[in-house]
Amino acid sequence: MSLAYAILGFVNEESMTGYDLKNKHFDVSVANFWSADQGQIYKTLDKLVEKDLLNFEIKYQDDKPNRKIYSITEKGKKDLAKWLEEDLDLNCVRDSFLIQIFFSKDLDLNKIKKLLVNRKEKHENNYKKYLEIKDEYFNNIKDCKDKSHILQYLTLDSGIKYEQSFISWCEDSILLLESIF
Amino acid sequence: MSLAYAILGFVNEESMTGYDLKNKHFDVSVANFWSADQGQIYKTLDKLVEKDLLNFEIKYQDDKPNRKIYSITEKGKKDLAKWLEEDLDLNCVRDSFLIQIFFSKDLDLNKIKKLLVNRKEKHENNYKKYLEIKDEYFNNIKDCKDKSHILQYLTLDSGIKYEQSFISWCEDSILLLESIF
Repeated sequence: MSLAYAILGFVNEESMTGYDLKNKHFDVSVANFWSADQGQIYKTLDKLVEKDLLNFEIKYQDDKPNRKIYSITEKGKKDLAKWLEEDLDLNCVRDSFLIQIFFSKDLDLNKIKKLLVNRKEKHENNYKKYLEIKDEYFNNIKDCKDKSHILQYLTLDSGIKYEQSFISWCEDSILLLESIF
Repeated sequence: MSLAYAILGFVNEESMTGYDLKNKHFDVSVANFWSADQGQIYKTLDKLVEKDLLNFEIKYQDDKPNRKIYSITEKGKKDLAKWLEEDLDLNCVRDSFLIQIFFSKDLDLNKIKKLLVNRKEKHENNYKKYLEIKDEYFNNIKDCKDKSHILQYLTLDSGIKYEQSFISWCEDSILLLESIF
């Protein structure tokens, strides 16, 4: 289960709470290829502790709720290292929008075009957002020698290419529909 | 839940069993953007019957197990038609491979390159498979007037563009790593 390994990966870099995992990591650095809600994260943290891949210490706080700080165990480090070299199967893309398109033969052409235009806009917004992150954090990546930073850039770049490709698919699809009907 | 709508979409075209849904539809025409296992399909069929969006009749067979043939109800047709025009949120891509890349700073460069090369091969296989389907079923799409067929082509084309973009990302990533280290 990949969420577990993403959590192990982050906690391997520094010990942290479930809250920080969500708000400082999942919602920021891997948001373009992985999303997880707080509930899933807490559930997975519990499982990782059960399996002895993580442990935690409780930090008592006077005026605020206590915090559970998770750290990776030796077993967790080994497990993560092994998974990182695994030859994983392809993920299925699972895009509900394509289900809409696939079955929309009874919609009139303008409505289908509207669906495509709206979808294109959403992907354009993501695309712009990713370009801004690229400009802010990955300027001059070719002169960078920090492997971790470069690998993070690669995952962002995959998001940029994905959005580009989806945008051009929307455009081509609209043109094709217009040329036929 | 999009699986439910994909099922409604197929059953709307013709009444069928859960087995046929999986083997003649999910595994064939939408495989490039949606996968579902037989268990999920049966569970969702039950829910759709409960909600009065589908009904079924049992076909008794002498030597073989009886078959449940599902049909769409009027309520199901309305629900599907409404969903097909909905402005859906973007799906998160959720690619475990990108989690591997994101956290693989402790792997040596050759191992990272090997991960990328293997991944590229898998996407190339998909790409070739989709091109074959395109050649076989969507030859001369520009002269086609069958809306349903054209919409099916569009969803296949999105898969083709996705694979192309992922392949070029793998290639660029390998080149970037080689140029830096």
